[in-house]
Amino acid sequence: MKFSIITLFPSLIKEMISESIIKRAIDKNKVNIEILNLRDFSNLNNNQVDDYQYGGGSGMVLMIEPLVNAIESCKKENSLVILTSPQGKTLNQSISTNLGKNYNHIIIVCGHYEGFDNRIMNYIDLELSIGDYVLTGGELPALVIVDSVTRLLDGVIKKESYLNDSFENNLLDHPVYTKPVTFRDKSVPEVLLSGHHANIEKYRHQEKLKSTYLKRPDLINYESLSIDDIKYLKELKNSKGEN
Amino acid sequence: MKFSIITLFPSLIKEMISESIIKRAIDKNKVNIEILNLRDFSNLNNNQVDDYQYGGGSGMVLMIEPLVNAIESCKKENSLVILTSPQGKTLNQSISTNLGKNYNHIIIVCGHYEGFDNRIMNYIDLELSIGDYVLTGGELPALVIVDSVTRLLDGVIKKESYLNDSFENNLLDHPVYTKPVTFRDKSVPEVLLSGHHANIEKYRHQEKLKSTYLKRPDLINYESLSIDDIKYLKELKNSKGEN
Repeated sequence: MKFSIITLFPSLIKEMISESIIKRAIDKNKVNIEILNLRDFSNLNNNQVDDYQYGGGSGMVLMIEPLVNAIESCKKENSLVILTSPQGKTLNQSISTNLGKNYNHIIIVCGHYEGFDNRIMNYIDLELSIGDYVLTGGELPALVIVDSVTRLLDGVIKKESYLNDSFENNLLDHPVYTKPVTFRDKSVPEVLLSGHHANIEKYRHQEKLKSTYLKRPDLINYESLSIDDIKYLKELKNSKGEN
Repeated sequence: MKFSIITLFPSLIKEMISESIIKRAIDKNKVNIEILNLRDFSNLNNNQVDDYQYGGGSGMVLMIEPLVNAIESCKKENSLVILTSPQGKTLNQSISTNLGKNYNHIIIVCGHYEGFDNRIMNYIDLELSIGDYVLTGGELPALVIVDSVTRLLDGVIKKESYLNDSFENNLLDHPVYTKPVTFRDKSVPEVLLSGHHANIEKYRHQEKLKSTYLKRPDLINYESLSIDDIKYLKELKNSKGEN
């Protein structure tokens, strides 16, 4: 998988991919990240890339020419061109999984300032938002996309790690505990110390259901639950006084 | 506003806040960002901060002691302690606005690896997610929170900039255009070149409605729309063949 990131802040992207799991994925040749400095694609004085908006209004707008030049410099026949924007489709775990499965070259255009000249849309395959909030630029969203896609690629992290991810099977992850057994009078749940694998598995599965039910009931897909799961959720509801 | 960020990757946070609008906000004393290296709060050999999870399973879990030590080192009476986690409440623009308005010290704990010892929840005020996807660590989410809150603080960006933000009044932003007037046979909408302010304002407002209707109909709050807005949306529906 190759990502080409078009940005005004190459050093920021560079730092971010020089740490942790992304770095390990690069070192293992699981992913290749190319950083393109948008200013290198300007034909104007001082490498100008933005200008005032037509019709008036505050803030500078990224000009279309450098953006198109940058995209065309790296685009291949099967590249997917993503624009990060609060107006895009909202990223979720299944989009991340599918991006990793279906593409081997993803170009990400990072916005900044007041936005892009809207004619850029003719050169974009997918407008993607990371959530319903506004940021000062598209660099954090680009890194979020790269990170969430990369960790799901084959051989980057252990498969059993991401099969337990939050959002797998529409459930949040169960809680985890490590040493010490007791910290300021709070102890690890006894079942986890029991060595009884079937009980541990059952406890963890119920904790996933419970956490999702309490924190994100919108995620639960009732049709995919087992009869035992539905019974457990009913007990939870009864214990909260619901019917 | 002060942020204290507890992380295993201080250099990554440092780079990110050394650019652009966040840096300007720091330079103007609008925001102060303290970075705490989690390893400095370990009492173990080699500054160990993680260990295997009880009950078995892949991945290392952040231990509770260094986390609590780090939180308690910087927590004041009115601090808000946020944990970044895919299991938290999903961040949105109104949460960002309210965090900036209601708090002057926010502590953000970044997760990593397989998660945290769950007993940390006793020390957390707000578990926050930036979206329904899993990342390799909590650093990008922490930066997203800092960025989205900081740009809305008084005096950081121009007020007219964020009053036109996407998600203000539950609408996406309108498209913007800059030079040149024509690029590869695509031209800027004529109304924007007309100099007629009332028409430009009407055009932009309708474009906001249109963009939201086409891309994020779930955002629209019909009760807050004017009669003209509702008429315009009806025309849009008719033109799409809906009723």
